[in-house]
Amino acid sequence: MTVETIFVGTEILLGNIVNTNGAYLAGRFAGLGLSTYYQTVVGDNLERICEAVRQSISRSDIVILCGGLGPTQDDITRDGVAKALGLNLVTDEHSKKRIEEYFARSGKTMTENNYRQALIPEGGKAIDNECGTAPGIVIEKDGKTVILLPGPPVELKAMFEKDIVPLLSEKTDGVIYSATVKVCGKSESEIATILDDLINGDGEVTVAPYAKCCEVHLRVTAKAEDEKTAKKLVKPVVKEIKSRLEEAVYTTDDDTTLEKAVVDLLLANGLTVTTVESCTGGLLAGRLINVPGVSEVFKSGHITYSNKAKRKLVSVKKTTLDKYGAVSAKVVKEMARGATMFNHADVAVAVSGIAGPDGGTEEKPVGLVYIGCSVCGEITTAEYHFTGTREKIRECAVAEGLILMRRCILEYYSRVTFGEK
Amino acid sequence: MTVETIFVGTEILLGNIVNTNGAYLAGRFAGLGLSTYYQTVVGDNLERICEAVRQSISRSDIVILCGGLGPTQDDITRDGVAKALGLNLVTDEHSKKRIEEYFARSGKTMTENNYRQALIPEGGKAIDNECGTAPGIVIEKDGKTVILLPGPPVELKAMFEKDIVPLLSEKTDGVIYSATVKVCGKSESEIATILDDLINGDGEVTVAPYAKCCEVHLRVTAKAEDEKTAKKLVKPVVKEIKSRLEEAVYTTDDDTTLEKAVVDLLLANGLTVTTVESCTGGLLAGRLINVPGVSEVFKSGHITYSNKAKRKLVSVKKTTLDKYGAVSAKVVKEMARGATMFNHADVAVAVSGIAGPDGGTEEKPVGLVYIGCSVCGEITTAEYHFTGTREKIRECAVAEGLILMRRCILEYYSRVTFGEK
Repeated sequence: MTVETIFVGTEILLGNIVNTNGAYLAGRFAGLGLSTYYQTVVGDNLERICEAVRQSISRSDIVILCGGLGPTQDDITRDGVAKALGLNLVTDEHSKKRIEEYFARSGKTMTENNYRQALIPEGGKAIDNECGTAPGIVIEKDGKTVILLPGPPVELKAMFEKDIVPLLSEKTDGVIYSATVKVCGKSESEIATILDDLINGDGEVTVAPYAKCCEVHLRVTAKAEDEKTAKKLVKPVVKEIKSRLEEAVYTTDDDTTLEKAVVDLLLANGLTVTTVESCTGGLLAGRLINVPGVSEVFKSGHITYSNKAKRKLVSVKKTTLDKYGAVSAKVVKEMARGATMFNHADVAVAVSGIAGPDGGTEEKPVGLVYIGCSVCGEITTAEYHFTGTREKIRECAVAEGLILMRRCILEYYSRVTFGEK
Repeated sequence: MTVETIFVGTEILLGNIVNTNGAYLAGRFAGLGLSTYYQTVVGDNLERICEAVRQSISRSDIVILCGGLGPTQDDITRDGVAKALGLNLVTDEHSKKRIEEYFARSGKTMTENNYRQALIPEGGKAIDNECGTAPGIVIEKDGKTVILLPGPPVELKAMFEKDIVPLLSEKTDGVIYSATVKVCGKSESEIATILDDLINGDGEVTVAPYAKCCEVHLRVTAKAEDEKTAKKLVKPVVKEIKSRLEEAVYTTDDDTTLEKAVVDLLLANGLTVTTVESCTGGLLAGRLINVPGVSEVFKSGHITYSNKAKRKLVSVKKTTLDKYGAVSAKVVKEMARGATMFNHADVAVAVSGIAGPDGGTEEKPVGLVYIGCSVCGEITTAEYHFTGTREKIRECAVAEGLILMRRCILEYYSRVTFGEK
């Protein structure tokens, strides 16, 4: 069974609103095991709505239209659907009564326009709207199903979950199950090479990579008759990916972010952490503190934007600043060491870089960032070259700061475990 | 001239991402005076991409495709467009070189896959991507224009503004001109009441409010034959809004963010600033440091997440913490004072609150935040009650911290000017 959606509204085509209904419905279809190949947005125009409905019906089993069920003259989704299907609009008495009651209850003035909302294509079935006045409509004709839903997300979601999910569940022949494998420290193309056979295979399990800032999320998906079977298909592929990418996989839990993975690692090892930031100016600490319960590991941090602050707050030596400059491996090393000592923290991460747009030189261009990480006294530094806007460079530096911290902690404990220390 | 967009990506059809590019591009088309009647979403499927391109070309003058230009095997937008237009894919040497340079510069490993990104349909023109590896592509054929843009919003926006806007501007007849009036410290409904006649008027100038976190942006728009005429219509309306909302208007410049307005105010008065943050954990400093050139005013800041850090870093008294608790007006006052003295800064802003999801009590619920601001020794504190997720509460606290800082500085200088001091 295939389903497709048509979103009706000139406000979408003018960019006044973001079409969040699109992602919501798409995610629900996937969960219900329905395939969807198209989404279309059209304005409040009778001809174009009618044409879009005809096209969608020709290629999909179920067509869902969202929006354009309001009381005003430009709400004409029901008219467009009626025209496309060759049906007359008739008043649904039950809906008419509900609308009258709604206005009586709310004390608002009802206008003649509001009666338009009780019109439905002949043979259709009205669906009560628990959160507003516009009823939804379901029409079954010639083996196809056309569903009209109100546009406001609150109304759409309530109606979809209560009345449309049961209807669609009867029409689906399986469920889709997805797991996410989150990877850091490897580029999308490196991963694509390592997982080439899985990504480009024609097996029943699909693996799709999505690049995020300094991360790649792999979506592993299978379709089966029931959830248990679909999960059983996905599981060995997730295992295979983990064995190939090893420690680059930081979680297979949808809700675990990179910062949560780092905080969990600190908690698991009983470590405290501190931060000392120049170009990222607090964003790295801010991201760590996204994680509820971080207070166990994070106590304090510093923003040392000026050279003087680097000296005063975390004891960077004047000679080091003079000789190597604030953006250097030597300085982030001293920043990390100073922050560790001042805060009595087990782990420290230090960032200094040139975020631009000004301040770059030939030797030290915009995008050059050094990150230092101290774990139990051992300090690692790394050099990065980011591109993009000031914001993008800072965002990347924060992500790489988390990734370096994770790597240094894992390496430290792996050495300790294997007796190298 | 009509334009339509095709968004390519199975991740959109699975509901994994919200298509924010849709609203962004639609808004820009409106601003450029281009009409758009359709948006289409298709998955990473050659046949369906090809079919969508053919349909769009048949009914619109300009077709813009977004996404599917990455290095992996499922990035096949360029293949679909080439097929629809009957063109071969050829390697663009300039793009190939840029991709090689990008990898050399960033020190990442380049794989064979990455060369796919340099392929463009014969006769097309590659557009440099300043924020990533995938070049954009412009193809002019049989009086139609087909444009391919990368999917990541940062890359798409940068390329669209720099290279596509000039190209589209040549193709449009009338122009739409918009000015933005940015307001803080007043709610959307307060503003709607004050500007009721302008927002709901039927004049040729429209005023549309968009609520952002603790801000409202008013978009003032007029359409005319040329930009000069449109500007002339918009100007008096902007002036009227400013006179009604007074100091709540922080800028009428599109590029000025709230943090930039605050930094500009500090610069104009020769003031330095420091921050001391608990629940926002560096995000307020991080937002100030978004502003290029902030180094003139911002030297250092502190993240004092634990009580001990509040005492050690900014000298909050143990008795104050014991008596009033970390989340209190008294504590943010001492934080602001301590930070001012330690950093020899003219202005300090201090934040302490309960971001949740845990840690709330009946007396001090989740969402309670205190902010203190010191300007030249005078300290103001304010209490806030935010709702929403941990992230949302922290985001609001950062915005209100900036707004309070702006208000305190303006009030201080207004008193000084009017001889109250």
